Amino acid sequence: MKIGVYGLGRFGSFFASMLAKGGAEVIACSRSPHEAPEGVRLAAEDEVLHADYLFFAVAISSFESVLRKVSDAIGNDTVVLDTCSVKTYPAKWMREILPQETYKIATHPMFGPDSGKYGVKGLPIVMCPISPVDGRYMEIRRYFAGLGLKILEMSEREHDMEAAYSQGVTHFVGRTLKKMGMQPTEIATQGYKALMQIVDQTCNDPEQLFFDLQRYNPYAKEMRLSLQVAIEKVLNRLAEEEDKF
Amino acid sequence: MKIGVYGLGRFGSFFASMLAKGGAEVIACSRSPHEAPEGVRLAAEDEVLHADYLFFAVAISSFESVLRKVSDAIGNDTVVLDTCSVKTYPAKWMREILPQETYKIATHPMFGPDSGKYGVKGLPIVMCPISPVDGRYMEIRRYFAGLGLKILEMSEREHDMEAAYSQGVTHFVGRTLKKMGMQPTEIATQGYKALMQIVDQTCNDPEQLFFDLQRYNPYAKEMRLSLQVAIEKVLNRLAEEEDKF
Repeated sequence: MKIGVYGLGRFGSFFASMLAKGGAEVIACSRSPHEAPEGVRLAAEDEVLHADYLFFAVAISSFESVLRKVSDAIGNDTVVLDTCSVKTYPAKWMREILPQETYKIATHPMFGPDSGKYGVKGLPIVMCPISPVDGRYMEIRRYFAGLGLKILEMSEREHDMEAAYSQGVTHFVGRTLKKMGMQPTEIATQGYKALMQIVDQTCNDPEQLFFDLQRYNPYAKEMRLSLQVAIEKVLNRLAEEEDKF
Repeated sequence: MKIGVYGLGRFGSFFASMLAKGGAEVIACSRSPHEAPEGVRLAAEDEVLHADYLFFAVAISSFESVLRKVSDAIGNDTVVLDTCSVKTYPAKWMREILPQETYKIATHPMFGPDSGKYGVKGLPIVMCPISPVDGRYMEIRRYFAGLGLKILEMSEREHDMEAAYSQGVTHFVGRTLKKMGMQPTEIATQGYKALMQIVDQTCNDPEQLFFDLQRYNPYAKEMRLSLQVAIEKVLNRLAEEEDKF
């Protein structure tokens, strides 16, 4: 089995190396010159686009235009998968842009170079079948399972709803506290230390990921509103308490 | 050395047991009938108020009235310490209400039953001297050190400024996310799991602690405003990004 990874940014490099640990031949290409990640061979774009399984690891906001650019060059028997952190739009783009005959699967590995630093065993990967499930789907599913990943299958909408209120809110809180200028302090409680780690980890990811998570998840706006409403409620409750005195 | 703990709420019970591990005789009393925490003997209020060191472990918002009620009954040679999570007001109350001759120390153990569940070694305790430092201060300081605590000495204002932007913001975020109805999800990222733990831990503490942290810390209001400003900035930045399309 030959796996291609298209895109070697922070996530793509990490993901390609992780895939290589499962024993398949992993090749990768990147817009800009890039060192080969561990266990991965750099290859020409054309070879990558003809692998048995082709993973796109590009920014959500670039995925549509990348697909339009390369779709004609993708092998007829190549299975196409995305790895975007939102699923409704990327799956829609794959359906619209790729030929009907191309076998398509949407995935979201719910981890990255920080959270997967010490191994990915037990970490979740979401799979949303786009083409009817057959042996090609089952083969890559088994490959993920062999890497120790926990496979969760759901619809694109289900994923985005859950992700807006988990990954989405985490990144929003992380970026907000960063903007607030949170600093380490000697008198940090354990809770504050944990919060600082979340800030560091979310802000380690490219800012574009943050924008894309908020912009391309159909439930993100509702999530942000619900966070603002919750803040108002807490502030009102504090005001009520003060009025008691 | 005999140590008295006045108040056996969630924090007081935990703190009394922790103190007992250092080898001193620890006695405690409580408004409502209460089982003796491990290693601690329940005693009459009068005996507790005459211990060598007397720790108050009562809600910040009750501390002033409790002090007024019992100050005449405190032993002349008893060293009085508070354990409140804010320091400016409690220190002011001790100065104003207790006799000038009473030896006073303000403290804030920066941990509790959750964060100290697996031991307190290396966890910080803040000490703000109120009376001029002498052997009585040094004796309890050594006792804290013997328990493995990391001692941090600072002024009451310094503590409150740092605490508003660390413990204060952590509790505010925890309560807000709870109000938003955060739920565990199968697709939780590691970051989201960490955030959920912070929510659970802050909301395990009594709600009164949350109100008091916000109300009695002179810097809490400024912290909350600065959090709101940061949210506005992040939302504006997201709107700018959307306008690019």
